[in-house]
Parts: sequence; structure tokens; C-alpha cells
Amino acid sequence: MNKQMYTAAAICERFGLQLKGDGAVELDAVAPLDRAGPRDLSFVVNDRYASQLAACTAGAVIVSTALADAVNGTALIAANPHVAFAKVATLFERPLSAPVGIHPSAVVSPLAKVAASASIGPCSVIEDDAVIEDDVIIGPNCVVGPDCVVGAGSRLVAQVTLVLRVRLGKRVLIHPGAVLGADGFGLAFDNGHWIKIPQLGGVRLGDDCEVGANTTIDRGALEDTVLADDCRLDDHIHIAHNVEIGAHTVMAGFTGVAGSAKIGSYCQFGARAGVFGHLEITDKVTLTGCAVATGNIREAGVYTSNNLPLLPSRDWFRNAARFKRLDELVQRVAALEKE
Amino acid sequence: MNKQMYTAAAICERFGLQLKGDGAVELDAVAPLDRAGPRDLSFVVNDRYASQLAACTAGAVIVSTALADAVNGTALIAANPHVAFAKVATLFERPLSAPVGIHPSAVVSPLAKVAASASIGPCSVIEDDAVIEDDVIIGPNCVVGPDCVVGAGSRLVAQVTLVLRVRLGKRVLIHPGAVLGADGFGLAFDNGHWIKIPQLGGVRLGDDCEVGANTTIDRGALEDTVLADDCRLDDHIHIAHNVEIGAHTVMAGFTGVAGSAKIGSYCQFGARAGVFGHLEITDKVTLTGCAVATGNIREAGVYTSNNLPLLPSRDWFRNAARFKRLDELVQRVAALEKE
Amino acid sequence: MNKQMYTAAAICERFGLQLKGDGAVELDAVAPLDRAGPRDLSFVVNDRYASQLAACTAGAVIVSTALADAVNGTALIAANPHVAFAKVATLFERPLSAPVGIHPSAVVSPLAKVAASASIGPCSVIEDDAVIEDDVIIGPNCVVGPDCVVGAGSRLVAQVTLVLRVRLGKRVLIHPGAVLGADGFGLAFDNGHWIKIPQLGGVRLGDDCEVGANTTIDRGALEDTVLADDCRLDDHIHIAHNVEIGAHTVMAGFTGVAGSAKIGSYCQFGARAGVFGHLEITDKVTLTGCAVATGNIREAGVYTSNNLPLLPSRDWFRNAARFKRLDELVQRVAALEKE
Repeated sequence: MNKQMYTAAAICERFGLQLKGDGAVELDAVAPLDRAGPRDLSFVVNDRYASQLAACTAGAVIVSTALADAVNGTALIAANPHVAFAKVATLFERPLSAPVGIHPSAVVSPLAKVAASASIGPCSVIEDDAVIEDDVIIGPNCVVGPDCVVGAGSRLVAQVTLVLRVRLGKRVLIHPGAVLGADGFGLAFDNGHWIKIPQLGGVRLGDDCEVGANTTIDRGALEDTVLADDCRLDDHIHIAHNVEIGAHTVMAGFTGVAGSAKIGSYCQFGARAGVFGHLEITDKVTLTGCAVATGNIREAGVYTSNNLPLLPSRDWFRNAARFKRLDELVQRVAALEKE
Repeated sequence: MNKQMYTAAAICERFGLQLKGDGAVELDAVAPLDRAGPRDLSFVVNDRYASQLAACTAGAVIVSTALADAVNGTALIAANPHVAFAKVATLFERPLSAPVGIHPSAVVSPLAKVAASASIGPCSVIEDDAVIEDDVIIGPNCVVGPDCVVGAGSRLVAQVTLVLRVRLGKRVLIHPGAVLGADGFGLAFDNGHWIKIPQLGGVRLGDDCEVGANTTIDRGALEDTVLADDCRLDDHIHIAHNVEIGAHTVMAGFTGVAGSAKIGSYCQFGARAGVFGHLEITDKVTLTGCAVATGNIREAGVYTSNNLPLLPSRDWFRNAARFKRLDELVQRVAALEKE
Repeated sequence: MNKQMYTAAAICERFGLQLKGDGAVELDAVAPLDRAGPRDLSFVVNDRYASQLAACTAGAVIVSTALADAVNGTALIAANPHVAFAKVATLFERPLSAPVGIHPSAVVSPLAKVAASASIGPCSVIEDDAVIEDDVIIGPNCVVGPDCVVGAGSRLVAQVTLVLRVRLGKRVLIHPGAVLGADGFGLAFDNGHWIKIPQLGGVRLGDDCEVGANTTIDRGALEDTVLADDCRLDDHIHIAHNVEIGAHTVMAGFTGVAGSAKIGSYCQFGARAGVFGHLEITDKVTLTGCAVATGNIREAGVYTSNNLPLLPSRDWFRNAARFKRLDELVQRVAALEKE
């Protein structure tokens, strides 16, 4: 493919950045600071990396005002260089090829409604009573089940399954292998065997949510599982039935949230975090990687658990064996103190 | 869709419940106690919630005998209200649309056997020597590989893969993204590089098993990986090769069972539980969430590990640092005791 | 299917093993030592199992020189019986049915290049500018996205997704549900909401890599996520964007590696291991199951964390509660020592 080219001046104008240096420099790719060449755009998010600017041969660099003078080439000055880079870099993405209309190999129920501006990819299946709104892109090999609604401008990348009663807001992005709306895990014990509790609710996502590859969001038992606007989920996450998550909450890979937990807005969960069922976590709670909440969290803040120091295995097991009698140890110390 | 309507009396008759109040009340949905209206059926599983009955406006409520008098509307009295609700709620599920026969977009090998009463969904692929028994429903975009048998009345919801030599019992339910029968993870080290050990076994599931979304069950190396009847697996579970699991065992999300472990009947594993390879876990063992068995468990009971208290991060790391010398601490206490 | 039969002599000749006993014995399956019959080939990898040889009725057994005399039937003597078995067992695998050419139900972009010797399975989708090299097998329901290259002799088993800019070396094997090349998880915070950082890199795998079912490898932000030759990943693994992994490294199920971590060659990670972002792990590091590296590892060796003893729950929680004041306990002991 031919690369698209932009001048530094054009980028500044389009994204409201301040230009310092030669605006005519031509840029057709982005690259990290230490590898960027004369046709590359680079950026410095953190002033710690400022020392690398001296040796940098990038055609242009997005920087904060404080670092503008340190740039050899052209500087594109931004109040928040990280955000500016995020926006500018979209210019250099491969354009998505998703022709409007229904691919001949797709199977669309006559009871589904598909907007004329939507794109339905090859080998995708749209079932009864599904609604595909304007400008939606359904990639290849997706399944959109009964009573699902894909909001305007949303995209299912490929191999995505919306099982039943899943409603996506606008501009939602779902990565491959994600499964939304599978049965919540509900069982009742009846005379020595399990019977299934029907899962009559659905799943609702607000606008601008993102769901990572192979992530699962189960549908509710009686009411819906709900993610508010701008929730961002990484890969391999599990959201159980009837969970509610507030707006702008972000979760990293392998996070698990058990049934009926309520999580606030602007929370940030590190990788492999967890929340037990039926808990309430207030707004702006950060769980660090591996931390698992087993009780309600009423105060915003940064919390940790289950993240012990890595040790050579022999040292680990010598210490870990002592854990079995930690309570006894405390009592022995108390006895010594009494003497 | 028009909703299906049932009278309270009809429900009682059908499910053997005892009626108290107006049997003619018409019900067309289920709802939780605090939101149910006059056409909704609700239920009280736990006597703790009995206090909510006073304000409840549900048309009818499934309750235990003890609570029948507290219901404002019609009471449907059950010995086990949880089980009764599970059964009654099936009336209000969206009927599954799965026409008998093979969808024209499905690809079925001439060497496969498909029962006339089975439904093969769009874009599904049935490979050589696969057997699809009576009343099976294969949803859209599934793959049933060679030498696989899908037992009568089973359902693969969508995007399910049975790779090779997978035999499902009757009424097995598999959710989207699940992969059964992929190669077990077996390697031998040969002169500085890895070579693959062929996985010549299969996977066998008994009747009435359920497998959650994106769960994986690998096939055995020489013999089969086996789940007995009525095993229930949540989403994101991994069952490695040659594992054997007894009947009625239930596992929550992210549980992992390593190769050749043998797990008893009526076990219950909480989320992110784990079992190391080649272990034996007896019947009726409960592992709480995050607990990992690293040795055999010979006695039924409830076991925990790897679930330490969540703390503000500063407090966590101050304590966690001490773990490195826990053994030394025990010896220091012993020295003090000797003095 | 008819089984393929091999004589012991033919196997010895083909794989360079030393024959002891009757070379004419006919073998048509493999079985574990305790269940093998007269037409089965078995093996002893570990001299610990030698005692089982006395009762063994296998037609032939692969053993080390030391055990050859203990075999009742025919012995196939190998320097490394584990490796020899791995190679010989391939004879007894079900032959793969993957006809050369493009299945009529597959959808291949006219801008893709597919080698004449490749097999493209039913309902698979090959998108613009993808390259499928010689002898590649793409199973059913796969998606190979734009700018992806599948190297010669590689196989995508079924339901595999290569999203964008994924380059596989030769003889790479990818199991169902795996997703390579999905967007790395990169966000910038802009005035109260999240914006996405475009992920302009790709994913590169060397030769002879294996990727387990439902494993995800995200593509890089600016540069590629890279796995060198002969990396072996089990199921449910997550490799985040810009990770680099050295040759011959092996990871078990649920391992997670966070963004930009660099991992050496010949590392072995147990199940549910983890590596925090931006760390460096040197060659030949073993992380035992559940161990999570939160800092660089500069020395080869075996490391553990987050694997505490499993206890009856009552005992666990009594001890775990003491963890909250472990630091205080250490100070109390120090105070006693001063006295």
C-alpha cells in the first residue's frame, strides 16, 4: 500500500497543536524516539525521556511546551502530549476495509433490521429480532443473536458473539473471541443434581465501551448486566451476571467480577484483579494487579492483596511453611511480652 | 414478540406447587421482589428477604410454607422455592428458534452422520466421521471435528469448537467460544528444542454437563479427559489433558485444573481455584475462591489459600516485605523463648 | 477407520531405535503401561515406573537401555525414551483431512495471495493483503486479516483469528479460539474520558511456535509484539502489546505477560504465572505455578510467589488475619530482643 503523507503544519492545524520549526516536513509514519527517522513522527509523553531528544532524528516530535527547545527537528507542542499523540496517530492507521452492505456469505434473518449504512462481513450471522444501527461494522464470522441491538458506529472486529438480549450503545468496539450475553452461571441443587436457573436478563453497554479479545460478559438472571459509558475492558476478563459497572472504569487482563457486584465510576483494576459477588466498590477505587476485593470498599484509594514478593523457590517455601502457624506465632509473641 | 401468559393456578398445577390466594392472576414475566408488578411472578429464596414481602406488589410470589401468610398477592408454596423458581422461570424464556435440518450455509461432510431431528445452524461445519444425535442443536459458526459425537438433546450455542474425538453425553450445553478437544500441552525436550507429544486421547463428557463461554477442555495424551454426569463449568475454565472429574462437580470462572488430576464428585470450586497436576481430590471438597491445591486432599471439607486481606497499598507492601523473612522471625521468637 | 499397522522392526528402523526381542510383532495403537495389550506400543519415560514392566502385556515398549531386560515383550531401546515416544506416536495420529485448495464456502479477498499447495477450510475468511504460504492448513471458521502472513507449513486448527499485521514463521501451530493481533490495551485520559491509542505495530512469531486454545497475543503500539522460534504457549495465555519473548520459552495455562516486558530464552512459566509490564527477565528463568514477577530477574533460577499452603478455611482465615499486622509483629519481636 502507498503510505499517506502529512506535513507537520497540516497536523498542527488539524489537531490544534503549536508548531515550532519547519512546518513543511513530510511525515508518513510514527516511531519510538530512539528509532524514528526523518519521515517519522515521534513523541515524548514523559519528561523522563527528554534526554533522548538530543540524539533523536525524527522528522517531528510531539512534546510539552517545556521540552520544545530540546527537539532537533520540528516540534509539535501539546498541552498533553499523550492525548495529542493518541489523536494524531489515528492518521497513520491502516484504513478499515468494510464495504457498506451485507456480504453474500453472511446470513441475516428476515426478522432482523440492518441499517443501509451498516457493513455485515463474510460468514457472519444476524439472527431474529436483532437490530444493526447506522454505520455499524460487523466483521467476519460474528454472531448477533436474538433481541440484540448494536448501536450506531459500533464495531465487532471478528469472531464476536452477542448471544441474546445484548444492547450496545454507540461507538462500542468489541474484539475477537469476546462473548457477551451467554447464560449467567446460576444453579439450584435439587435432590442430588443441579438444575439450571434460567437467565432472563440481558447485557447493556453504554456508549464508547471497549471489550477485549476473549472477554466474557454474561447476561443477568432477572435484570441486566450493565456497563455504563466509556468502560474499557482488556482481554480475558469475566464479568458475571447482574454486575453493574460505572462509567469510565478500566480493567486489565484476567480481571474477574463475580455475580451482582456493583462497581463505581473511574475505577482502575490491574491485571488479574478480582471482586467477589454481591460487593459494592465505590468510585475511583484502584485495585493493583492480583488484588482481590472480598468485602465492600467504601473509600476511594489504591488497594492491594495477593501480591507477595517473588523469591528463589527454596526461600519462598521456607517462609510460606511458616504461614500455617502465623496466628500461633502472634500468640507466642504476646506471651513473651507478658513475661 | 407477544408475551406468553400463564395463570397462577396453571403454574401450580404444572409444577406441583400449592396455591394460596387468587389462582386466576395472570403472569407474563418474572421480576425481583422489589421491582415486580401485578403481572410479574417473583420469589423468595431466603427467609432473610421476607421483610420485603410487605411492600411487594408482585402478582404472585413463590415462597416456602413459612412465608406464605406474608405474601400480599397470590402465594405459590414450594418445599424448595429456589428449585421451584428455576423450573417455573423456564416458562418465560424466549423460545429457541432452531429449525430442524441443515442450514444451507452449513458445511456437513458426507462422512458425518446427522440425525433427521437435529438442527445445524448457519456457517457451522461438521467434519468427517462426526455424529450428531437426535434433537441436537448446533448453533451458528460451530465446528464439530472428526470422530466427535454430540449426544441426543445437546446444544452448542454458537462459535463452539469440538476439535477431535470429543464425545458429549445427552443434554449437554456448551456456550460460545468453548473449545473441547484441543491438543493437551505435552512437550519433550530434544537437543535444545521442544518436540510435541501427540495427543492421541479424546474428551468425554457425561449427561447434563454444562461448559461455559471460552472454557477449554483439552484432549488426553493416551487416554481421555473425562467429566462425569452433571458437571457444571463456568466461563474461562481450563481443564488440562487426562483430568478426570466426578459427577455433579461445579467450578466457577477461571478455575484451572492441571494435567492428570483426579477430582471427586460433588466438589465445588470457587472462582480462580486451581489444582496442580497429578493430584487426587476426594469427593465433596470445596475450594474457596483463589484457593489452589498443591497436594492431594483426602478429606471432604472447605479449603482456602492465596486469599489474603485487601489493604490500602501502602499497608500491604509494608507487611508483604516482612514475608521475605518470616522464617527468620519464627527463629527469633524461638530464641527469645529459650532465654 | 481402519487402523494403520507397523511392525516393531519397522519402527526401530524408521526412528533409529535398537530392537530387542521379536521385530515382527504388529502394533496398531499406543497405550499406557498398565493397560497396553499385545497390539499396543507403550513406553517408560521414568525409571520409577520400571516396576510396572513385570505385569505389562504390551506388544512392545520403548525404554532406556537400563530397562531393556525388564521388558516382557519386545523392547525398543532409546537414548531418550520420552523423545522417542513423542516421535513414534505420530505414526498413530489420525491423518489430517485437509484437501489442498480453497473450500467453496471460504471467502478469499482477491488482494490476498494463497499458495497453490495451501488448504483453506470451510467458512474461513482471508482478507486483503494476507499471504498464505506453501502447505499451510487453515481450518474451518478462521479469519486471517489484512497484512497477515502465515508461514509455510503452519496450521490454524479452527476458529483462529489473526486480526492485523500478524506474521507467523514456518510450522507454527495455532489452536482454536486463539486471537493474535488484536489491539493492544492502550488508553490516554483526556478531560474525564478515555481515548484510544492507535496500535500501529503487529505481531511476529518465529518458526515452530505453538499457541494454545483461547490464548491472546495483542499487537504492538508502535513496534511489534515478538515471539522468537520454538515458543510454546498453553491455553488461556495473554501476551500484551510490545512483549518480546526469547526462543524455546514455554508457558502454561493462564500465564499473563503485561505490556513491553522482555523475557529471555529457555524460560519455563508454570500455570497462572505473571510478569508485570516493562520488566526484563533473563534466560532460563523458571516461574513456578502462580508466581508473579514484579521486578526484573537478572539471574537464571527457579522463583516462586503467591503460592501459600492450602488449609482448612477456618485455619486459613485465622492466619490470614494476622497478615494485616505482620510488620507490627516484627517490630514487637525487635522490641523484645532489645530488652
